[in-house]
Amino acid sequence: MSNIQLIEVKEDILADNDAAAKELRDSLKKEKTFMVNLMASPGAGKTSLLLQTIQALRNDVNIAVIEADIDSVVDAEKIAETGIQSIQLRTGGFCHLDVSMVKKGLAALDTGALDLIFIENIGNLVCPAEFDTGATIDIMILSVPEGDDKPLKYPLMFSKCHALIVNKVDYLSLSDFKMELMEERVRRLNPDIKIFTVSCKTGEGIDLWANWLLEAVQSHIQ
Amino acid sequence: MSNIQLIEVKEDILADNDAAAKELRDSLKKEKTFMVNLMASPGAGKTSLLLQTIQALRNDVNIAVIEADIDSVVDAEKIAETGIQSIQLRTGGFCHLDVSMVKKGLAALDTGALDLIFIENIGNLVCPAEFDTGATIDIMILSVPEGDDKPLKYPLMFSKCHALIVNKVDYLSLSDFKMELMEERVRRLNPDIKIFTVSCKTGEGIDLWANWLLEAVQSHIQ
Repeated sequence: MSNIQLIEVKEDILADNDAAAKELRDSLKKEKTFMVNLMASPGAGKTSLLLQTIQALRNDVNIAVIEADIDSVVDAEKIAETGIQSIQLRTGGFCHLDVSMVKKGLAALDTGALDLIFIENIGNLVCPAEFDTGATIDIMILSVPEGDDKPLKYPLMFSKCHALIVNKVDYLSLSDFKMELMEERVRRLNPDIKIFTVSCKTGEGIDLWANWLLEAVQSHIQ
Repeated sequence: MSNIQLIEVKEDILADNDAAAKELRDSLKKEKTFMVNLMASPGAGKTSLLLQTIQALRNDVNIAVIEADIDSVVDAEKIAETGIQSIQLRTGGFCHLDVSMVKKGLAALDTGALDLIFIENIGNLVCPAEFDTGATIDIMILSVPEGDDKPLKYPLMFSKCHALIVNKVDYLSLSDFKMELMEERVRRLNPDIKIFTVSCKTGEGIDLWANWLLEAVQSHIQ
């Protein structure tokens, strides 16, 4: 019909966000600051992984954390107990972070003095996958109790991440989670993804992940 | 705790949006264009009210419509059948419009040549109430079958609107909807709100609402 025009708002909004994300990523690169966007379902172990990773790397690099939560400060308090600077973004209902929100967090940090900033995104495998935060790399956690079918259900999230941390491997003996099948499903979406298997409870596998991340940070900040 | 800092992202995002809305409202005022932000639950009769209002006012003022929908163009097609220019914003899941989205719609219109632009917001009584669109006035519809308790459940929406259209009054005889009680509840939140009772099906009451709107538009564009 001639007097009707369709505008895809979502695509426009995402395009605006993508442009802002690229700009932020370039500016962090210039400041030699590496930013990790950590995504996962609620309860997959984002804060636990951060606590383990901070422990492993705090003597090598200067770290801060931006925590996003819909309506609490519990996670930020856990991080703050380690002595690491922690910014809590309370989103009041928003289900993902975008660049404008991340920048509010960064404005509260002395980014030039930091080597590594973690963003703990909202617990959600859908919307956060669509919004580039401006981070240097995107990381996701899949925990064993969530099941090996998640790559089939949330393909965008698995497609865009640079690394997948499979957490709670201490549950494997009690679970019908098939690690090989899950890996096969993930690699069909994302052949180059780096996969680590860890237990944040026992500490198993944390060293491999932390060393990989340290190398990435060091080559970025050199 | 000294190394934790709380940032209310939602408040910041709303403040940014409010500032952009004020700027848009001022710029529309300069162009002598009156913009109505129409909000309601799904199925309350937003598109039917627009069709009736366009019919009543199309000989007096130049009208266009910006339709927002999560994922269809049905409403825009109905408007376009009247010959009035209609922009469909497909939000792809977003549950409200903000100023940046409205501006994408306005960019497709020759606003200077228009007297009256309707925005049909997403069918939702929660989030749209929080986001100023930059419209000259906010209008909401409550339909009789929704019940007279809605002002108690969605106080922000009823508080911020300049006028309330009570639609589907042809259902009153079949309903336990108490008009006086509803009005009392609304006026407790918003003493100055203008209330119209209409039936978009029979056309009852449309003239009073349309005349009120026409006067508002004419005093704005003079």
